[in-house]
Amino acid sequence: MFGLMQDRPLLIASLIEHAATFHPETEIVSRLPEGAVHRTNWLGVRQRAKQVANAMAALGVQPGDRVGTLAWNSYRHLALYYGVSGSGAVLHTVNPRLFPEQIDYIVNHAEDKVLFFDITFAELVEKLAPLLKSVKTFVAMTDRAHMPAIQVPNLLCFEELLDAQSTDYTWPELDERTASSLCYTSGTTGNPKGVLYSHRSTVLHTLMELAPDTFGISSGETLLLVVPMFHANAWGTPYAAAMVGAKLVMPGPHLDGKSIYTLMRDEKVTFSQGVPTVWLMLFQYLDANPDVRPRELGVKRIGIGGAAVSRAMLERFENDFGAEVVQGWGMTETSPIGVISKLLPKHAALAGDELLKIKLKQGRGVWGVDLKIVDENGQALPWDGKAFGHLHVRGPWITSGYYKSEGGAVLDAEGFFPTGDVATIDPDGYLQLVDRAKDVIKSGGEWISSIDVENIAMGHPGVAEAAIIGVAHPKWQERPLLIVVKRPGQEVTRDGMLDYLGSRIAKWWLPDDVVFVDSLPHTATGKLLKTSLRAQFKDYRLPTA
Amino acid sequence: MFGLMQDRPLLIASLIEHAATFHPETEIVSRLPEGAVHRTNWLGVRQRAKQVANAMAALGVQPGDRVGTLAWNSYRHLALYYGVSGSGAVLHTVNPRLFPEQIDYIVNHAEDKVLFFDITFAELVEKLAPLLKSVKTFVAMTDRAHMPAIQVPNLLCFEELLDAQSTDYTWPELDERTASSLCYTSGTTGNPKGVLYSHRSTVLHTLMELAPDTFGISSGETLLLVVPMFHANAWGTPYAAAMVGAKLVMPGPHLDGKSIYTLMRDEKVTFSQGVPTVWLMLFQYLDANPDVRPRELGVKRIGIGGAAVSRAMLERFENDFGAEVVQGWGMTETSPIGVISKLLPKHAALAGDELLKIKLKQGRGVWGVDLKIVDENGQALPWDGKAFGHLHVRGPWITSGYYKSEGGAVLDAEGFFPTGDVATIDPDGYLQLVDRAKDVIKSGGEWISSIDVENIAMGHPGVAEAAIIGVAHPKWQERPLLIVVKRPGQEVTRDGMLDYLGSRIAKWWLPDDVVFVDSLPHTATGKLLKTSLRAQFKDYRLPTA
Repeated sequence: MFGLMQDRPLLIASLIEHAATFHPETEIVSRLPEGAVHRTNWLGVRQRAKQVANAMAALGVQPGDRVGTLAWNSYRHLALYYGVSGSGAVLHTVNPRLFPEQIDYIVNHAEDKVLFFDITFAELVEKLAPLLKSVKTFVAMTDRAHMPAIQVPNLLCFEELLDAQSTDYTWPELDERTASSLCYTSGTTGNPKGVLYSHRSTVLHTLMELAPDTFGISSGETLLLVVPMFHANAWGTPYAAAMVGAKLVMPGPHLDGKSIYTLMRDEKVTFSQGVPTVWLMLFQYLDANPDVRPRELGVKRIGIGGAAVSRAMLERFENDFGAEVVQGWGMTETSPIGVISKLLPKHAALAGDELLKIKLKQGRGVWGVDLKIVDENGQALPWDGKAFGHLHVRGPWITSGYYKSEGGAVLDAEGFFPTGDVATIDPDGYLQLVDRAKDVIKSGGEWISSIDVENIAMGHPGVAEAAIIGVAHPKWQERPLLIVVKRPGQEVTRDGMLDYLGSRIAKWWLPDDVVFVDSLPHTATGKLLKTSLRAQFKDYRLPTA
Repeated sequence: MFGLMQDRPLLIASLIEHAATFHPETEIVSRLPEGAVHRTNWLGVRQRAKQVANAMAALGVQPGDRVGTLAWNSYRHLALYYGVSGSGAVLHTVNPRLFPEQIDYIVNHAEDKVLFFDITFAELVEKLAPLLKSVKTFVAMTDRAHMPAIQVPNLLCFEELLDAQSTDYTWPELDERTASSLCYTSGTTGNPKGVLYSHRSTVLHTLMELAPDTFGISSGETLLLVVPMFHANAWGTPYAAAMVGAKLVMPGPHLDGKSIYTLMRDEKVTFSQGVPTVWLMLFQYLDANPDVRPRELGVKRIGIGGAAVSRAMLERFENDFGAEVVQGWGMTETSPIGVISKLLPKHAALAGDELLKIKLKQGRGVWGVDLKIVDENGQALPWDGKAFGHLHVRGPWITSGYYKSEGGAVLDAEGFFPTGDVATIDPDGYLQLVDRAKDVIKSGGEWISSIDVENIAMGHPGVAEAAIIGVAHPKWQERPLLIVVKRPGQEVTRDGMLDYLGSRIAKWWLPDDVVFVDSLPHTATGKLLKTSLRAQFKDYRLPTA
């Protein structure tokens, strides 16, 4: 027997409708690529979104067609978030920081029909346009005065395109399972793979973002969205802001410390989300300007994800800003909320290192995300904070596979998605990442975390960068090899390095050898490319072998 | 094209699984009808819920069957919330305060197969048992030592029934539209009508309860659940507490001011929800015990619904408790969140009466509840804070009709549910109730709010209770008649009453006559029974007619 409640689909358009109806005048502030600070409000965003939806029809975009963006965070990108998905098409946010050949691959794989781009990327688009076979129309996200002088076929001006459209539009009542957006993961192995979100998964994830146990987003907030809108839907915050009608501030391409600080101050930001790299740039600005008093900003919370938060970063936000750090772990495949680091009432009595130890874990589970860690045979491991296992996750905003079945069937027998991460989970459900599964070193049946050893090696004053990889060993299967880039002007030797590590890690974790190189390989987005290192040292013979 | 996110149904069992997995040791405290304070935790509640689910099978309860409860708030009722709904049966919470003949009607209409009851209601059940044809098993919610000595066929003891069941149980993967619980409205007209909730509607409503713009429920909370679990799923809080793993405190039948105060103090309650009547009992206790300092309780928020909050109540919670009042409007048919009274950033500059005026409105819209006010012809009225209209609502946790099609098709052409309330909505989306539609007085095409005039009349020192009804008038269609119960020992005349009102309300709202009576008719739950008054004064001839 079914209940008798109203059968209303969960649709992204309902978010912008709510914001425009109940919070019409709440400001949406953008620093544009053109430089100026632009102001509109939720009513204005809905109007633009409806014009985008009408433009979709005018450009021949059918329901289910993909529409690409190469764009920073701005009200224009926000109008595309609502207008493209709301109309039944699929918003495909492309990461402009990828290598051009990856962008070429992704746009062709997605078969984007239209490509919207910020003028920052005009030259890139001019170069790629001949390769992007599916793209029928290119739209420069600017006004006529700032149109780039590039040779691209069917090039339109965003503001002109929209101004020509009616502001009347009735959102279609889509099936809530309809695809809404598409984002490719820029993995360190193989081709990028597309994660295809649905209206339902997006709305459910957005609801969870409001919870005080996650980001606690409310109408009282002024949100500075530093995390890019081309990263997993900017962690869902463009949707959450509309669901509660919060003020939204977007920095465009202006991510340097001074620009971010200025926006925080001028717009009275209460909550901001970003990756550690951006916050390091903010700290550099503060270091160079000791007269600036970040506590006066009144920022209440800083959301950090994408990479682990260091103790120094956490303490600086707490002490200098008076802000709470809300760390999280997730990935493109998890929408992205996986776990969120919020304390429990039982932690109220803790202080100092005991408290920090908990705060520096990636976080604990939230409703909607089932977690498990499993061994090589898929057997569940205990939640004792010690056992390492492959992290698998399940829930209504976790992917079931990749676009066009890339990578084949990915779920395990219980329907969980294998994240490729290795983690521990403690008895309170706090997750701590140990390593990427493919980077962990398997030594005689035990696992060694490459990340842990690297982080300690990087603490040596003579080390600029360090990587640990597993190298074949006749007895132990694999043993760790440490690869070091020396800091210019510093001296460090193999034995000095091993002595340094020897006093800080378990004996069996100690690398069997150290080699020095001039540089390490990285992906376009700055991740260490260990596949390349492993290929380079494939035949390396350890002194212990 | 559908998205590729995991197809996970939204099920109530997932809430208790989350709580037991991530917050196993968080306490669940109950004051039982037997008197003692009982302590368990989320792990214990899950265990009991699984035993309930196994008991359902043992008692021959099939998926979709209704299982009734006549019970106060306790861990036993909580175990039924999860165990009955989780197993695929329908939890039917019956309001024990109704007249016995209404309970008879409701249980027979629902065709409950099993009836669980607190020992408080043992005599009532003994009396009703012969009439409850569908009920095959009666279960007294107590242990063997406290079993009531009543003559009821197939009477079982709750703790014995559960102890005999395995604690192993795998929740079925139900369709999320499956009916989960049933609650009858005790209207002032006609027979009670059943609202049939689904797993989906319940989980979506629960997610919205976490939002800071509504009740902001988090794992850091200690929730005192004063609102009965037989009222619209106790406003959803038993589910929200599990979704975040909050500590939950339940008072059983002990709703007097001293008991509530003691629980608040002993359990360090941070948030409590209840109807105004319960808070008035708490205030009476405080009045009688001036040495008690409610500010020392540390209660942060008080949720109030079910009836409008008075200025005095709001100010007392703010000033004496240092607590924020979170008012809401909803009904059984809305799960119940309809609107919630939370301030907007623009109100930060307000103070005094200006601020109070906003706080005393029922609240503003939240995502998931579409609102409109319409005139007699169904035409939408403006949101200007002045126009009165019939309030219609739409959303995934709003009912589409009543159990067994009682009352027929109820939705309007746009799929909105007509609430039977008359309200204004202001430009910020704040709703203010004006009256029940059937009580509003239609005078020459304009509407007069009976509630407004009654509230003012009740301010007269000589008035114990007052009611306004519309009486037929040859020229104006209806004109108001004021019906007054005098306060013992006080004197008040017709002309004195009209003078009092005349200086406080618009001239055309002034009643055309005043009559004095010894008492006014009420429903079992204390609502003024205006249908009965209208029948009594059907042929009353106004002096102006």
